[in-house]
Amino acid sequence: MDKDITIYDIAKELDLSPTTVSRALNDHPAVNKNTKQKICDIAAQMGYRSNIFASNLRKQRTNTIGVIVPRLNSPFMSSVMAGMEKEANNADYNLIITQSLETMQKEITNARTMFDSRVDGLLVSLAYETDTMDHFEPFISKGTPVIFYDRVIEHNQCTSIVIDNFQAAYKATCHLAKQGCKRILHLTANQKRNVYADRLKGYRYALIDNNLPFDESFVLITNLSEEAGVEAAQQILKMQPMPDGLFVSNDTAAVSCMRELQKAGIMIPDDIAVVGFNNDPISRVIEPNLTTVNYPGYEMGEVAVRSLIHHLNGLSDITITNTITLRSELIVRASSLRTKIE
Amino acid sequence: MDKDITIYDIAKELDLSPTTVSRALNDHPAVNKNTKQKICDIAAQMGYRSNIFASNLRKQRTNTIGVIVPRLNSPFMSSVMAGMEKEANNADYNLIITQSLETMQKEITNARTMFDSRVDGLLVSLAYETDTMDHFEPFISKGTPVIFYDRVIEHNQCTSIVIDNFQAAYKATCHLAKQGCKRILHLTANQKRNVYADRLKGYRYALIDNNLPFDESFVLITNLSEEAGVEAAQQILKMQPMPDGLFVSNDTAAVSCMRELQKAGIMIPDDIAVVGFNNDPISRVIEPNLTTVNYPGYEMGEVAVRSLIHHLNGLSDITITNTITLRSELIVRASSLRTKIE
Repeated sequence: MDKDITIYDIAKELDLSPTTVSRALNDHPAVNKNTKQKICDIAAQMGYRSNIFASNLRKQRTNTIGVIVPRLNSPFMSSVMAGMEKEANNADYNLIITQSLETMQKEITNARTMFDSRVDGLLVSLAYETDTMDHFEPFISKGTPVIFYDRVIEHNQCTSIVIDNFQAAYKATCHLAKQGCKRILHLTANQKRNVYADRLKGYRYALIDNNLPFDESFVLITNLSEEAGVEAAQQILKMQPMPDGLFVSNDTAAVSCMRELQKAGIMIPDDIAVVGFNNDPISRVIEPNLTTVNYPGYEMGEVAVRSLIHHLNGLSDITITNTITLRSELIVRASSLRTKIE
Repeated sequence: MDKDITIYDIAKELDLSPTTVSRALNDHPAVNKNTKQKICDIAAQMGYRSNIFASNLRKQRTNTIGVIVPRLNSPFMSSVMAGMEKEANNADYNLIITQSLETMQKEITNARTMFDSRVDGLLVSLAYETDTMDHFEPFISKGTPVIFYDRVIEHNQCTSIVIDNFQAAYKATCHLAKQGCKRILHLTANQKRNVYADRLKGYRYALIDNNLPFDESFVLITNLSEEAGVEAAQQILKMQPMPDGLFVSNDTAAVSCMRELQKAGIMIPDDIAVVGFNNDPISRVIEPNLTTVNYPGYEMGEVAVRSLIHHLNGLSDITITNTITLRSELIVRASSLRTKIE
């Protein structure tokens, strides 16, 4: 493998002193404009690693925003990315994305990669199992803004962008109760993360307010994958008495669970009414169509990048904004609308 | 915003000479092991940008692989990413991902970001509209391996990883012909890209071999989005006579097209038999279940990263491998299986 191009290589190529090259690449006033342009052109042509000189030319910026996501495996996350790209594009920023694959170890490596890539800012949705913020401290102490979205954590220097997961879950569960469900099961994920903890809380309060008992065994903690939905259905089929309502924390697991229940002869919504979360396209394809919570992922991505860029441009200060909450709404469809109520 | 930490800051902090610090960070034998460790620890703690010293410590490597994708908006691309992450993880590499959003301009920016991040290798699936390879030349001239996957191009120094799109499309179209379809429409995307050009070729040869006429107006070039499927259905409904078979280049557009046709009272497969491409989860949810081509995205991701790492480790040489072709297969389901044949 060839070695990195240095200022000495560029100097040799142009028959100039290394000092002049170095000054030109650092936009020093002692070098005249034409020479600067020539040096920059040759540097680019020779493949000189541009992070130092480019960032200097652009006020220490790389115009790159780092994004850490748990996994790029859902329409929700794709929508968030699309919203982020749109805003980044408009402002001439480029996104680089890494996946934590739900492990803290990989999230730490992701953060280091982003730091080494000198991102101007970092957008993070936390892995299931992360329980330290240490890996974000180098950014914060350097003044590089960090914004959390979807799966967030309290931090006195970072803004969080969320929906009201508590309210969304509360409404979803109340809806099932109003459809006559008496034994509502909740399928969700790791309680370390705000999104799932808040939804469980919303579910619990809704049960209380509808005079329904809370039963520990009616809360299933899974990874919400397609397989997890199938396994949950197999568990549900063994329960005596079976649940008559099901509130699932994403549409992927809700749909695979529904299909497995249907295969076993369960009628939806008559035997079990189902509500999902996210409003993925699949929720409009499954029969009966799935009642779900519309989670504005695209808008969340837009707001995250816009807030970051406003902060970088001095138009706002994320260290004084604690939380930005976006609207979400329950979309009622056939999977939970009972023709006959018990 | 704070300035970058330099070796002078580290030297000051430890009361050592900048030369010693520089040597330690470059793993120079003149510095003893304990001092080296101390300097590296402090450097990390102070947030010293580690790309130079880390890559030196690790034989000029950043252990980072860059991935350029058109869009992260499909289960297919998610599968590819998952396969890549798995192999990268096993070999202690980290992926950084950027999206071209189907434009050449953004793909060029992506490539520059990757170059500046000093990736050890690059994996690329081309945007719809890319028609130059210039932005990959800096990698190739520096000896950084570039591998194309899915949407590829001939290049005498790069390996391409593909499925046999021609054969897959040929089989899909022959299957429709065998089900009695006489007027088979093909819904696909930009012909600049091998995947769509090869599939169109497969479709045409299958028509010839089944003594069916080829009609230019029966090939619709779209972006294969959910909306494109709906629009195609509206076009199809106006055709006189209507097609009786439909071969769509992805499942997203196939499903939305099917649903729109069904809304208009068209029976599937009796009025129109449908075949998709990719074997997305949605193909098993739509009623009737969609016949499709199983595209091994996960395996493609694994093979791409494995080939790259083998090349980096000197176990193989991608400059001598032109193409790696993975197996695909037609999965026949109810959307194309006719109960009565005309």
